Amino acid sequence: MVEVVGTAPTSVMVITKFVYRHSWKTNFINIKGITRDSITIMKLTKEQSQEIKSQQSQNNQTKRVIAPELEKIMYEAMPALDHGFVRVVDYMGDDTSIVQAARVSYGKGTKQVSTDSGLIKYLMRHWHSTPFEMCEIKYHVKLPIFIARQWIRHRTANVNEYSARYSILDKEFYLPSSENLAAQSISNRQGRGDVLEGAQAKEVLEILKNDAERTYANYENMLNERYDGSTINESKKGLARELARMNLTLNTYTQWYWKTDLLNLMNFLRLRADHHAQYEIRVYADLMLDTVKKWVPITYDAFMDYRVGGTEVSSKGKFVIQKLIKGEKVDLENSGLSKREWNELMVAFNLKDKLI
Amino acid sequence: MVEVVGTAPTSVMVITKFVYRHSWKTNFINIKGITRDSITIMKLTKEQSQEIKSQQSQNNQTKRVIAPELEKIMYEAMPALDHGFVRVVDYMGDDTSIVQAARVSYGKGTKQVSTDSGLIKYLMRHWHSTPFEMCEIKYHVKLPIFIARQWIRHRTANVNEYSARYSILDKEFYLPSSENLAAQSISNRQGRGDVLEGAQAKEVLEILKNDAERTYANYENMLNERYDGSTINESKKGLARELARMNLTLNTYTQWYWKTDLLNLMNFLRLRADHHAQYEIRVYADLMLDTVKKWVPITYDAFMDYRVGGTEVSSKGKFVIQKLIKGEKVDLENSGLSKREWNELMVAFNLKDKLI
Amino acid sequence: MVEVVGTAPTSVMVITKFVYRHSWKTNFINIKGITRDSITIMKLTKEQSQEIKSQQSQNNQTKRVIAPELEKIMYEAMPALDHGFVRVVDYMGDDTSIVQAARVSYGKGTKQVSTDSGLIKYLMRHWHSTPFEMCEIKYHVKLPIFIARQWIRHRTANVNEYSARYSILDKEFYLPSSENLAAQSISNRQGRGDVLEGAQAKEVLEILKNDAERTYANYENMLNERYDGSTINESKKGLARELARMNLTLNTYTQWYWKTDLLNLMNFLRLRADHHAQYEIRVYADLMLDTVKKWVPITYDAFMDYRVGGTEVSSKGKFVIQKLIKGEKVDLENSGLSKREWNELMVAFNLKDKLI
Amino acid sequence: MVEVVGTAPTSVMVITKFVYRHSWKTNFINIKGITRDSITIMKLTKEQSQEIKSQQSQNNQTKRVIAPELEKIMYEAMPALDHGFVRVVDYMGDDTSIVQAARVSYGKGTKQVSTDSGLIKYLMRHWHSTPFEMCEIKYHVKLPIFIARQWIRHRTANVNEYSARYSILDKEFYLPSSENLAAQSISNRQGRGDVLEGAQAKEVLEILKNDAERTYANYENMLNERYDGSTINESKKGLARELARMNLTLNTYTQWYWKTDLLNLMNFLRLRADHHAQYEIRVYADLMLDTVKKWVPITYDAFMDYRVGGTEVSSKGKFVIQKLIKGEKVDLENSGLSKREWNELMVAFNLKDKLI
Repeated sequence: MVEVVGTAPTSVMVITKFVYRHSWKTNFINIKGITRDSITIMKLTKEQSQEIKSQQSQNNQTKRVIAPELEKIMYEAMPALDHGFVRVVDYMGDDTSIVQAARVSYGKGTKQVSTDSGLIKYLMRHWHSTPFEMCEIKYHVKLPIFIARQWIRHRTANVNEYSARYSILDKEFYLPSSENLAAQSISNRQGRGDVLEGAQAKEVLEILKNDAERTYANYENMLNERYDGSTINESKKGLARELARMNLTLNTYTQWYWKTDLLNLMNFLRLRADHHAQYEIRVYADLMLDTVKKWVPITYDAFMDYRVGGTEVSSKGKFVIQKLIKGEKVDLENSGLSKREWNELMVAFNLKDKLI
Repeated sequence: MVEVVGTAPTSVMVITKFVYRHSWKTNFINIKGITRDSITIMKLTKEQSQEIKSQQSQNNQTKRVIAPELEKIMYEAMPALDHGFVRVVDYMGDDTSIVQAARVSYGKGTKQVSTDSGLIKYLMRHWHSTPFEMCEIKYHVKLPIFIARQWIRHRTANVNEYSARYSILDKEFYLPSSENLAAQSISNRQGRGDVLEGAQAKEVLEILKNDAERTYANYENMLNERYDGSTINESKKGLARELARMNLTLNTYTQWYWKTDLLNLMNFLRLRADHHAQYEIRVYADLMLDTVKKWVPITYDAFMDYRVGGTEVSSKGKFVIQKLIKGEKVDLENSGLSKREWNELMVAFNLKDKLI
Repeated sequence: MVEVVGTAPTSVMVITKFVYRHSWKTNFINIKGITRDSITIMKLTKEQSQEIKSQQSQNNQTKRVIAPELEKIMYEAMPALDHGFVRVVDYMGDDTSIVQAARVSYGKGTKQVSTDSGLIKYLMRHWHSTPFEMCEIKYHVKLPIFIARQWIRHRTANVNEYSARYSILDKEFYLPSSENLAAQSISNRQGRGDVLEGAQAKEVLEILKNDAERTYANYENMLNERYDGSTINESKKGLARELARMNLTLNTYTQWYWKTDLLNLMNFLRLRADHHAQYEIRVYADLMLDTVKKWVPITYDAFMDYRVGGTEVSSKGKFVIQKLIKGEKVDLENSGLSKREWNELMVAFNLKDKLI
Repeated sequence: MVEVVGTAPTSVMVITKFVYRHSWKTNFINIKGITRDSITIMKLTKEQSQEIKSQQSQNNQTKRVIAPELEKIMYEAMPALDHGFVRVVDYMGDDTSIVQAARVSYGKGTKQVSTDSGLIKYLMRHWHSTPFEMCEIKYHVKLPIFIARQWIRHRTANVNEYSARYSILDKEFYLPSSENLAAQSISNRQGRGDVLEGAQAKEVLEILKNDAERTYANYENMLNERYDGSTINESKKGLARELARMNLTLNTYTQWYWKTDLLNLMNFLRLRADHHAQYEIRVYADLMLDTVKKWVPITYDAFMDYRVGGTEVSSKGKFVIQKLIKGEKVDLENSGLSKREWNELMVAFNLKDKLI
């Protein structure tokens, strides 16, 4: 999805083609696919680049199972938004770990019945959750604070966040690219409408940029200290860091180590890589979805088939589908569904002509 | 701790005396007690006041146990910081619920050994945690975003936060009172030092106020909508709410419903009502500690004695204490402790003259 | 579902009619409905009956919301299996608590869009989970140990179990009624087949009864103590309780306090009130499902429609359904489904004639 | 602690010396150290031995960090009790992972202040929990069911247990060695007293053995199937496995995959490797404690010093200790402590002469 065309020592330049994710929970009512800036530049300091290279050059021997495709991208800072990234920094287990744990649960005699792939599909289909908890992954993520706040609502994970109580935050803030400067949807309180254009777009970007820069400059002033550690005015004290940070805007970048098991990761991705999710978190979810594919390819396929690409049908919805298949008459009135539910059902099965 | 002296229909005025919490993990190295502004004004709209009164006038019959002292303050908005509050909106169980659950765990025959109070103390002392999970409480809290971010790190709770993705946030932001405008500690990266004074204090408060007001005004501009719902410019679109919010500063107030069990609440309070905690979260923790006292008074006493007022001593620390009691010679060198550990131990037992 | 026809002071007699749960995830491939013994007698001691009556006579005033239908059955020991029961001993919140929490999450302006019922249905349909966590319930349950072991796999609950380390377990063990003495299914490793009959049924019941009685008698012998606390042989020591318990069989009854929130309760019920669940745990799940109906009737309806009575359709399954609706040719070969998946899909939509 | 002296292809023979764990929460009131049978024989089938050897011969390359000492014992079945074992089957991270995560949390500038070891000790001392969650470990454990029931109360772990609903359990049950056949303590409801001896010991062991064998034989009879899969009587049906298992006694062995993070593992070990824990679970906890030492040696040392070897002192207890150090008079009456608390305090600081 992302094609890296060049890498300079201290920056990562990425050219992204427009990608329409047709394997996704798509929707024929004109849902935009996920796009990225045509050129994203995420700067890493020389020191950071060096540290990453040093981690990548590790070559240890282990008796543990490994995921060869995931090993290839370990520690790499995959760019997200304008200054963020996702890095896989550790993992445990692979597809066989799920099978291994499930077979303790099933005990002797099941091996002839199912291949590993069949077993994983069976587990996914029937919501057998515990075997998927046997795999674990740890990411290092750099992301805007307002996205971090959305992310952290998923509680079943381990988190260590960079602390602005002890340290000074980087001078980096998220500014949407022009394609992503969406207006508020009129019809749907939770969605975005058309993209802002022309003078208004320019004005919004100016505001975001100026306010972030001003509040950051004042953050340094109050701290009486610059990001590089130098004191601004030797005759002054600095405000406590735990207080000064309150002046920063919510698009300031933060970073954390985030670790979770495969089951909870899939629960996260199911919600956050969905087209209902806010674009800015979907960018991260999409990158992570690709790491799942590299890590546990069989589970990934089952996840895409049964969860991401699948749908739920209510008791009343089942009745409507049955009628439609039998060619019997069914309409909104006798379906027991609300208009919204009716349309959601027709969208789920791509029955354009039945929309009301 | 908080003495309410007058209540106007749409505001709550509070006069707080300086309270030095001597029952707390105090510390003779000049740790400031918790103070509050001499006058805190938290405004509630007429509508909000009315809703609270309406809830308070409920008078239902139940077969469940009740906590009479907690009932008295239910739904009340107890002011915290300049615009925040804590409200108890529901609870389940009381001290007897802990005993009741523990006795299933202990079974027949224990009643003659321990009174209820003795049993609760025993459970607390020996880290029997599950009986305390049998009580549950739910708060409605209004708090600055940077504090909400600290708070949410406690994952074992249920949370519903006001969503700035769907709604417009209130124009309210935290400004520290002058007594709480602490400088960064020189000696301790995690602490506050002296309070800023004079011109610098004034300058900091100006910055915080101006930046919050400007970024909020620009938030409305980008939304093309005022807080009251009126459109600013009929010929313009508004930026999506989920995007516009990123321009707000971290001292903007948010609010949530937060529900947890008594065990996890005590874990929260142990860390957040401690003098190491940031002042701004301690204000909330202190209010909640008072609700625990009203709710489960026996458990509260045991908690204060064994957890809050207690201390841990390491294996090496035990050896030092033994020597001191026996009057034998022990010093930093032969203690096996670091200088920092030595001093922490002496502080814990209030042995001023043994500090190094 | 359960019709109580008579109650003696120290026992509860119940006559249950055969009930085919047609609102349930039914299945036309000859799945037996849930039945109960025609007469179940669960004995309570006089003391226990007295304690329950005493709890039921409580009449407290509260400002909290109440669930009137649930109040009516509070503390009542609803019989389950031959010696077990389910009792609601506390709860917190009702349907309005979900709406209240969700509206903090949605903020102002949503009230005109949805009635409370519409909002709850919307939340359920779109997997908004946190508002349902705002309600909490606590049960006292008596159940066989082998069922307790299945139950405890649901980790997101609070539990206090009667401890056989400290106390002597009651002399009560589960013996299946003759209708529930199922043979191992030949075709399905996880299911039951036909019911055992005649001499073999009798033999099995004899074995279960004799072995439970013998191991219990030996349990008392090793303890050198009878259940009533009397010593068997004054000149002997008793084996430690924590050891003696290992001689008991897995159908011995235990009991616990089990507390969870509504979301996790629904997750439990979705799996354990399903026809794939073992009969013995379904009996408990069914009783609890009825308490959900009494507690939060709107949520109950949404749960039955969207979760219990609903189904999931995979990406490939959606394709098959689309073809069927359009009257296009689709069969196992070109569906991409396994035979098992194909049949599960046809069963879900009650398309008997399409089974392979 | 365990010295392996010989290994035959299908069994593991172990000679254990008596070990008094003096680094442990010892106690001068005659607490027995943990012992093991002088000779433990745990049989593995040829197939199982082969599978383990095959796993151990894996030699993969990874960019992940490794724990060299832990790698050496990976997959090995370390004997526990008479038929149980503990095997490390996967892990993630090492001591540096904790430091790495904590430094994101601390940010720039902390490196010169603390060595890694100092930082880990600091984190442990001040209950900074999240960095320890960054390491994960997975065990395969074989253990008696009554111990599994104690173990599972630790809910913050991932578990896949061998299912007796689908499979037939092994014919293996725990029989205590003669040194561990403890009588019920007279003074302490939760403890063991002296060891049973002579005729009574013999009788108890006979009972346990006979009842386990008889109930297992009847289990096979009801299943109409032997453990090896052969049918007993071709003309009979077998009782469903999910039912037949209820006839087994609680000392029957089960097995599971159990995965947790380092923080929760330490919480488990703190309670279960303590001398208050039941001997049978301590045997497992001790083996696991040794794996922690091999895995994260720096964290292990801090854990032993601050948690295992340390103690908590209540607010009132601190007052008593202060008095004792100052040589002032303090006794039970003016201490505010109960007699039990007084003695627990004196034991914690090894002040034998102050016991009452």
